[in-house]
Amino acid sequence: MEQNPNPSHPVRAELADGRELLYFFDGGHAPAGFLAPPDTRELPARPATSQLRYDALSGEWISFAAHRQTRTHLPVASECPLCPTRPEMASEIPADAYDVVVFENRFPSFGPEQHSVDSPVELGAARPSHGRCEVISFGPGHTDSLASLGIRRIRTVIEAWAHRTRELGRLEGVEQVFPFENRGADIGVTLHHPHGQLYAYPYVTPRTENHLARAAAHQTRTGRNLMADVLDFEVADGRRILERGTHFTTFVPYASRMPIEVHLVPHRQVADLGELTGPERDELASMYHRLLSTVDALYPTPTPYIAGWFQAPKYHEHRGEAWLHLQLTSPRRAENKLKYLAGSEAAMGAFIGDVTPEDTAESLREAAARLESHAHAL
Amino acid sequence: MEQNPNPSHPVRAELADGRELLYFFDGGHAPAGFLAPPDTRELPARPATSQLRYDALSGEWISFAAHRQTRTHLPVASECPLCPTRPEMASEIPADAYDVVVFENRFPSFGPEQHSVDSPVELGAARPSHGRCEVISFGPGHTDSLASLGIRRIRTVIEAWAHRTRELGRLEGVEQVFPFENRGADIGVTLHHPHGQLYAYPYVTPRTENHLARAAAHQTRTGRNLMADVLDFEVADGRRILERGTHFTTFVPYASRMPIEVHLVPHRQVADLGELTGPERDELASMYHRLLSTVDALYPTPTPYIAGWFQAPKYHEHRGEAWLHLQLTSPRRAENKLKYLAGSEAAMGAFIGDVTPEDTAESLREAAARLESHAHAL
Repeated sequence: MEQNPNPSHPVRAELADGRELLYFFDGGHAPAGFLAPPDTRELPARPATSQLRYDALSGEWISFAAHRQTRTHLPVASECPLCPTRPEMASEIPADAYDVVVFENRFPSFGPEQHSVDSPVELGAARPSHGRCEVISFGPGHTDSLASLGIRRIRTVIEAWAHRTRELGRLEGVEQVFPFENRGADIGVTLHHPHGQLYAYPYVTPRTENHLARAAAHQTRTGRNLMADVLDFEVADGRRILERGTHFTTFVPYASRMPIEVHLVPHRQVADLGELTGPERDELASMYHRLLSTVDALYPTPTPYIAGWFQAPKYHEHRGEAWLHLQLTSPRRAENKLKYLAGSEAAMGAFIGDVTPEDTAESLREAAARLESHAHAL
Repeated sequence: MEQNPNPSHPVRAELADGRELLYFFDGGHAPAGFLAPPDTRELPARPATSQLRYDALSGEWISFAAHRQTRTHLPVASECPLCPTRPEMASEIPADAYDVVVFENRFPSFGPEQHSVDSPVELGAARPSHGRCEVISFGPGHTDSLASLGIRRIRTVIEAWAHRTRELGRLEGVEQVFPFENRGADIGVTLHHPHGQLYAYPYVTPRTENHLARAAAHQTRTGRNLMADVLDFEVADGRRILERGTHFTTFVPYASRMPIEVHLVPHRQVADLGELTGPERDELASMYHRLLSTVDALYPTPTPYIAGWFQAPKYHEHRGEAWLHLQLTSPRRAENKLKYLAGSEAAMGAFIGDVTPEDTAESLREAAARLESHAHAL
């Protein structure tokens, strides 16, 4: 298998406080004559690496990034740090135009340092919150969305995700790379400019640990991979399938937690985005574009969502069971109602669904049909 | 140990659609001459029991209670179903006055039926969402809060919680009873009237499973109970202690997940609220009142919170490790800012704290001191 079938050639630059920044280009190459301009701002030194504390009751590590309390909160467009730099406003992005840009978060939950630490895992344990947090801006337009930017741009974003997954995965002490997008003020987004993030965690995340434990138990019991069986089950049932491609399937899962929940799963077992071939990335760009456009066509206003990639951790006894997939969720349960995670979900982890997955799939298929007939009418 | 040291004598009644309702009284006994009036409303039949589906990726059961989509949402006071019945408005509570009342939820996530079901636990498994959901109204006043109702009322609420824990625990197929309160529209409360809920689950909840697994591993490694060691650790450190009573300690935990998080833990190992003695319940009423009042004194406006009791499941191989405790959390991270559970928390289960637990404890101690000096000045 090719490791990098459609190589992207980002241009690297450095921000005033030493953070790394990378420009990615539609089509893979910088336009002739592109030069990364310097960052002319005066910036304070980067914050100290925060602290990770071990919660003995749950067995989880919690990161305390107290400097994040003062992070930029819903700035007006003229002060947006993700818009290109203009003469009157130097943003986080020194260039005056770009396609996709990735840079280290100024207020990271993990990092800026990376190291491997051998620390005890017991009541009262603490260690530095090593790792790295990056921001990925999907384009220069402040009011765009990833869906509105189109398939070619999503293809570039996939290249950037794959590139960053590979590079971040090589950093000392990083155990898992998580590309994700939080979209919409209703789910706590602090910047409206279309963007996502990448977290390079210094541990295997709790939900990934849980998935891998379940997959290992399933393998032991049945001799088969759990996600392979989930795919077969969803395809055989059919009621929740949204789109069946050559390389991927999109569906509302049988036991979804959220009023809108869609999984996008490759047909063959790959560990992470870096392992996808060129044709797979092409189809993914097209199917992800359709998924995001459909979610936005559900209601008259854009739907808030969280979309995150479950990738294999670097080292894990059950790494062989990992199977790359995307989970998109939204708390929107009606045009003007959100689902809140209150007592049962937040304290007990016991989820209550307000909408059946079959109804959600039907609503999404209707929205997709509206989109299609609208496109034909144009 | 006495099983019911301070017996409460609720008066039982039945609502028009057959749901059970219980009146509890401050001091334990109904006032002379109290008669539960009949429910004169015409009510539709109760909904069918919803469906539980097994999520193979996480190993969790999700309840689909689709009839909840139409549940009452933030009614005005004149239509509040928890206010006492008046001539012009028949509410869920037929009496024209009451102290504390508990009744079966009209839109339950679990129930109305209860049965034990032997179902497979595998991809595609489903079974009826058996169990029971109850509402507990803390008093007749629409604009009160549990804190404002005072210690004597909280003592009655504790009796009601203990009574319901005992009775619900005896229902067929119920495995765990969870008393909790969601307070504030910011966390999705659909009724402003001061109230809580009790969920009687047909399974052991995921967070309880996780706690018990951790406690069992800790016992194996150290020969000690995990919560006993957590208490010793917090007391020895001291920086996060809010109040140290004779029978309980209140503290901000070392690795808290939320900007405001407080645990209230008994000094001896008890499985559930029903096992608390009279003196323990007395002190709990007083300390819980102080905790809720303190949380409300943090900011000029009331703070939204989730408060839930972790109780031992009925049957579990590690039941012997369970230790009753309350967890109170709030997403409020500043006067006008909430913490949202976005990509890292929602998808990966990886929590990022914005405030250190020591700072939260300090803010809560300052709020408690303000309350106390205000009380002395009166």
